[in-house]
Amino acid sequence: MGRWEPNARERLQQAALELYSERGFEQTTVAEIAKRAGLTERTFFRHFADKREVLFAGSETLHALFVSTAAAAPQSAAPIDAIAAALDAVASVFQDRHAHSRRRQTVIVANAELRERELIKLASLSAALADTLRQRGVPEPAASVAAEAGIAVFKVAFERWVGETDGRDLGFFIRESLDELKGVASGN
Amino acid sequence: MGRWEPNARERLQQAALELYSERGFEQTTVAEIAKRAGLTERTFFRHFADKREVLFAGSETLHALFVSTAAAAPQSAAPIDAIAAALDAVASVFQDRHAHSRRRQTVIVANAELRERELIKLASLSAALADTLRQRGVPEPAASVAAEAGIAVFKVAFERWVGETDGRDLGFFIRESLDELKGVASGN
Repeated sequence: MGRWEPNARERLQQAALELYSERGFEQTTVAEIAKRAGLTERTFFRHFADKREVLFAGSETLHALFVSTAAAAPQSAAPIDAIAAALDAVASVFQDRHAHSRRRQTVIVANAELRERELIKLASLSAALADTLRQRGVPEPAASVAAEAGIAVFKVAFERWVGETDGRDLGFFIRESLDELKGVASGN
Repeated sequence: MGRWEPNARERLQQAALELYSERGFEQTTVAEIAKRAGLTERTFFRHFADKREVLFAGSETLHALFVSTAAAAPQSAAPIDAIAAALDAVASVFQDRHAHSRRRQTVIVANAELRERELIKLASLSAALADTLRQRGVPEPAASVAAEAGIAVFKVAFERWVGETDGRDLGFFIRESLDELKGVASGN
């Protein structure tokens, strides 16, 4: 096989997710993932540090999109509106990824190590968002509270969306949870 | 040494926290903790499963207090008020534990494994709180959003309180963050 493999990254991600779903995360080896994708282990390690990383490969892109969208909101926008814009931008990325996201979530929920990893990623997203809000002039603790609440909305909406069977998109669930946050906070 | 050691649990916790602060969590052994406390390793393992558990020994009590207070709020109380009551009850437990909490937080922040453990504890607290709210008749996603927002308030308030130098108590910071949540959610 040549050094350059078309869509190697995507093929490895697809193969890994299939195998994790079929056999479980712990029972799957990198050799098996590479084989299923029709690639070598060497190619696998050119793309991913380990078999856990395959599941979190998109998180840097997501992180960057989230933070840059919040930062780009009009200076007059309230913190919650900057966060809503960021959540909307992220939702559009998941537009055609329902089956994939659902499968990935099932794998993650079944494994304590992967759940911890997901929580760490969300905590770091929250910290970055709080930092962005502070740079927009939002004081503490408003910046941290707004960021944590925004991530909470994302988390709840994402979990509802992966369980969705009526075809409503992630954006729908984000708006729903954001409305609930407003309702809850105002004492309804 | 006899089988019964007065205050063994507290002495071990105190010794562990001292050693983790002085040498770091990873560099400290159970033998050293037992020695510092004037106890045996055997006594250590009668109280704690491992050296990580010493730092999280109070979390079941906290969890139970949090959930039972939320459950005991008047049936007419809004979700946010049931959560505020739970946060208040928890704050009172930390009344005389500022120095201890500050030291513990420093140890946890310095170690990735401990940070993950803390996040898992908070996530499980959030899930239990959402469950309590559902039992009170709060529908989804309001129950999950309210629980996540409540834990977010606790997290931000706790971090501000451990850094506090003016003697204000945890209850002050919880009320502050709760007010910010209301402000942020209403678009201020």
